[in-house]
Amino acid sequence: MTPVITLLTDYGLEDGYVAACHGVIAGIAPHARVIDVCHLVPSGDVRRGAAILAQTIPYLPEGVHIGAVDPGTGGARRSVAVEAGGRVFIGPDNGLLSWAVRASGGARAAYALSNEEHFLRPVSPTFPGRDVFSPVAGRLAGGLDPTELGPRVPVERLVSLPEPTSLLRDGSVEGEVVSVDRYGNTQLSIAAGDLHALGVQVGDTLGVWLGRRQLAMPYRATFAAVPPGELVAFADAAGLIAIAINSGDAAQRLGLPPGAHVRLSPTP
Amino acid sequence: MTPVITLLTDYGLEDGYVAACHGVIAGIAPHARVIDVCHLVPSGDVRRGAAILAQTIPYLPEGVHIGAVDPGTGGARRSVAVEAGGRVFIGPDNGLLSWAVRASGGARAAYALSNEEHFLRPVSPTFPGRDVFSPVAGRLAGGLDPTELGPRVPVERLVSLPEPTSLLRDGSVEGEVVSVDRYGNTQLSIAAGDLHALGVQVGDTLGVWLGRRQLAMPYRATFAAVPPGELVAFADAAGLIAIAINSGDAAQRLGLPPGAHVRLSPTP
Amino acid sequence: MTPVITLLTDYGLEDGYVAACHGVIAGIAPHARVIDVCHLVPSGDVRRGAAILAQTIPYLPEGVHIGAVDPGTGGARRSVAVEAGGRVFIGPDNGLLSWAVRASGGARAAYALSNEEHFLRPVSPTFPGRDVFSPVAGRLAGGLDPTELGPRVPVERLVSLPEPTSLLRDGSVEGEVVSVDRYGNTQLSIAAGDLHALGVQVGDTLGVWLGRRQLAMPYRATFAAVPPGELVAFADAAGLIAIAINSGDAAQRLGLPPGAHVRLSPTP
Repeated sequence: MTPVITLLTDYGLEDGYVAACHGVIAGIAPHARVIDVCHLVPSGDVRRGAAILAQTIPYLPEGVHIGAVDPGTGGARRSVAVEAGGRVFIGPDNGLLSWAVRASGGARAAYALSNEEHFLRPVSPTFPGRDVFSPVAGRLAGGLDPTELGPRVPVERLVSLPEPTSLLRDGSVEGEVVSVDRYGNTQLSIAAGDLHALGVQVGDTLGVWLGRRQLAMPYRATFAAVPPGELVAFADAAGLIAIAINSGDAAQRLGLPPGAHVRLSPTP
Repeated sequence: MTPVITLLTDYGLEDGYVAACHGVIAGIAPHARVIDVCHLVPSGDVRRGAAILAQTIPYLPEGVHIGAVDPGTGGARRSVAVEAGGRVFIGPDNGLLSWAVRASGGARAAYALSNEEHFLRPVSPTFPGRDVFSPVAGRLAGGLDPTELGPRVPVERLVSLPEPTSLLRDGSVEGEVVSVDRYGNTQLSIAAGDLHALGVQVGDTLGVWLGRRQLAMPYRATFAAVPPGELVAFADAAGLIAIAINSGDAAQRLGLPPGAHVRLSPTP
Repeated sequence: MTPVITLLTDYGLEDGYVAACHGVIAGIAPHARVIDVCHLVPSGDVRRGAAILAQTIPYLPEGVHIGAVDPGTGGARRSVAVEAGGRVFIGPDNGLLSWAVRASGGARAAYALSNEEHFLRPVSPTFPGRDVFSPVAGRLAGGLDPTELGPRVPVERLVSLPEPTSLLRDGSVEGEVVSVDRYGNTQLSIAAGDLHALGVQVGDTLGVWLGRRQLAMPYRATFAAVPPGELVAFADAAGLIAIAINSGDAAQRLGLPPGAHVRLSPTP
């Protein structure tokens, strides 16, 4: 079977940084298939990186999954390999991997990356993606046992990122904007299941509070269920509630940045 | 032989959307080679997507070619597989595929994608690229017969995008700006053959009308045939007339957006 | 062994240009692994392309390496294949390849690409990447001997790009900003070794002259060694001195574009 290695970074595409990782992997594991998850995570934005990885991971074959987003790169942060389901995640122990690990069934075991014989040497303190994560991923894809990487780390000691808030109370559900995509669709931290638990069904009209503003908004199966230019809430492809404008940019029109507070209620 | 699957979308590169498609394909067709045609088609711009696919397709190996640009995603639009030459195109029936199909010899047969056993389930109404097109492409790459996908669609019922206008009259040829590339080169809907039919030869000077403005412009084999900073018309790598500035940005200097009307005549 | 072909261009990602190259290669060398080095080299910026290629090449497997950045595309410029170490570089003879060739041990032999039987025909004068470099790379990956490509070119006749200036004098070292990455880290043309030759050690404080401005700056192993928001100089992952702000954008704060003059001294 073709081993799979995936890469998520904030390296951008304007340099050769991503290619260096591909090159290192290709040299060690020439038969691995490498899938780029995303390289345009905003610089140092660990939460955004964690969200993209967690939402994409269910669609990636089991393999070795590198995450490299870390404003503390070069500091004392340890690097880890985390086994979850049939996957191994590799990256900084800063929470970046935590949501994807949970989405993969939770951490079974974890190891600190300390055995330098599996690294490129010398290791540049500012580029662990190239010098540590990529060669380690290549070796794991080639059959190396994760126990060879370094000492075991108790999984309860791994850094976990707080989940985006979502709170059911007083008959409504509160959350925040998790991300805004290229189309201007704003994904909330509110799962479709939470909304349905309040009795909301597709076809209903929601009450939507954005800070002090209150709006009424149709809840539909998809944005295409409303006329172009109109607001709509729907369960997106990740199972989360999104607010969109059919053929328009909801984030821009509503002024909704990531982190903004949102409350949804079953009646407008 | 290694099967080839290609992907053209307007998903952008800032999320994990493209990776989810790669992941689904890799899970079903681990030995397929996946080529990214373009993921930065402007959001919902079916014509631009159609142009990029049609101009690239002659250089891609025969395979399964996914197109996913559809402002009506999630609506009632049907999805189709279209056989043309040795290729199978998969995407919405909104014209996106039509120019590439024609460039591949025209549709031989078409099928509505309705057999859900080849889909990822549940199908998100907003992400057919991941849940429908990618698994179907993977199965076709693995040998599935297109007739298994769903009922036949008469090829004359497929939605066709109107071709960019190009009109020979009164000894000149009229067309429009099809696209502007990263260098600011503006590609017209006018084929080099149409210009040559008017008797124009490389080395001549053209009359160029841009709305009410009239310019004289050398017609050369390439932009490098004029000094840096000067305007030139030439037959581009797709066989269409392009207006460029050697080492400069013609679209910016001339204010020529896609869709702008242009007329060329053999004499200035 | 899987042959490797790498691609560095200034084509951007908004068109199908890169995909056309991938397609041509896949048609000729279906088993080659293709690695994208970078496609966002600023349009026509040969020095920037040369720097990215030279800094990435040590991490790429030996293979065939295409470079396509050439403001003179379509002109009289010859295209070449250059053997260096176990690698073959393909591209315009405009210096783009010269730094990577040197980093690979220097040119052993070079050939003008003139044997058209290895090209796609007809050759578009404006797209040698697709019509010349890609098919030639595919054929070399398939075992073609470089001597078949065309007449030998004396290696001393190849165009070499001047190296970024770096000058040790009067107890300090002068250089220039080579590049600015996505994080705003500014890479200088000054090798860490040159700074160490002046007696500088990690932990010292440097004097930094930017034009007329003078700053004192800690020299550390990495940017994470200083508090967030503070300036720092360090040896980057390419062995060059970089000026950065921990969790900040040094290029923006200091107003340092590529080419700006910088002088470093062992004492502030």
